[in-house]
Amino acid sequence: MSDQKLIGPSIKQIPAGDDRERLVCPDCGFIDYRNPRIVVGAVCTWEDQFLLCRRAIEPSYGKWTFPAGFMELDETVAQGAAREAKEEAGVDVDIQDIIGIYEVPQVGHVMIMHRAPMQSPFFEAGSESLEVALFDWADIPWDDLAFPSVEWTLRRFMDVKDQQTVPAIYKTSKYVLIT
Amino acid sequence: MSDQKLIGPSIKQIPAGDDRERLVCPDCGFIDYRNPRIVVGAVCTWEDQFLLCRRAIEPSYGKWTFPAGFMELDETVAQGAAREAKEEAGVDVDIQDIIGIYEVPQVGHVMIMHRAPMQSPFFEAGSESLEVALFDWADIPWDDLAFPSVEWTLRRFMDVKDQQTVPAIYKTSKYVLIT
Ligand SMILES: [Zn+2]
Ligand SMILES: [Zn+2]
Repeated sequence: MSDQKLIGPSIKQIPAGDDRERLVCPDCGFIDYRNPRIVVGAVCTWEDQFLLCRRAIEPSYGKWTFPAGFMELDETVAQGAAREAKEEAGVDVDIQDIIGIYEVPQVGHVMIMHRAPMQSPFFEAGSESLEVALFDWADIPWDDLAFPSVEWTLRRFMDVKDQQTVPAIYKTSKYVLIT
Repeated sequence: MSDQKLIGPSIKQIPAGDDRERLVCPDCGFIDYRNPRIVVGAVCTWEDQFLLCRRAIEPSYGKWTFPAGFMELDETVAQGAAREAKEEAGVDVDIQDIIGIYEVPQVGHVMIMHRAPMQSPFFEAGSESLEVALFDWADIPWDDLAFPSVEWTLRRFMDVKDQQTVPAIYKTSKYVLIT
């Protein structure tokens, strides 16, 4: 038995007019409508090289990924992807087309991944990155990538490299990615 | 001056470790991390006809749209689009590919629109629809569509009708859609 006080939206209830349980705050009645969240990502490239960041945060601390993170309010999908590239790797990029949409329903993430050529070879690690580096394709640390979606997206990038416009491939994870 | 009591997350603060203002509850400290929401939509077709629903809810009460709504947790993008088709129009559909991604950053919506052939010609209005009907292309009520994204998506559908795979066109609204 725990007598820890529940704070914030912590009680499951079906609000009036709704058809499913939401978390409701027992103190103030606030209803927490949780929805899936959008992750915006950018495969940042300089000539034939790929920019990867080694994560300074959990999950997957110490593992490599291209810049990606949760989309915020008051920005577009493309602006969010460019913002993450700037925050995590200090790079200015041109966000081109969407090459992949991946999702992990078990954790409520929908990922929208872009091609994003860098405007210059300059980069520097942001506060969420231990280090940032440019890799040749042959040198990508496949065994140390942060999430399966990083590998899916990089391979997708190579598959469509010579195509000007490409369908946004759509893939649903059958398993939980975050360990 | 109002002495109405603020309830739930209602005070703007920058939480520790964060870099932007969030709404925080003054009573219990709960932080409301708001993110953009995903709208999943399905252009439902039977042979050469398009299924449209006349909305029984605001916004755009009485206007026409194909089935679409907010994605929920514990479902995939495709499952959400199929669920909306079932809820709003009573139809069973096959969710095919994504033909368009539209967004309205002013209201924090990102819309993922699919091609979705119906499995049979059966349909019936759900509780959020005043009526449901199949339309020939020439008879679509263009002047009474619920949102600009409905027209964008229908025209996109026709543009790529004969293509097996298509790029997910990406379009950002420059204005607020919901009036
Ligand atoms: Zn509360
Ligand atoms: Zn509270």
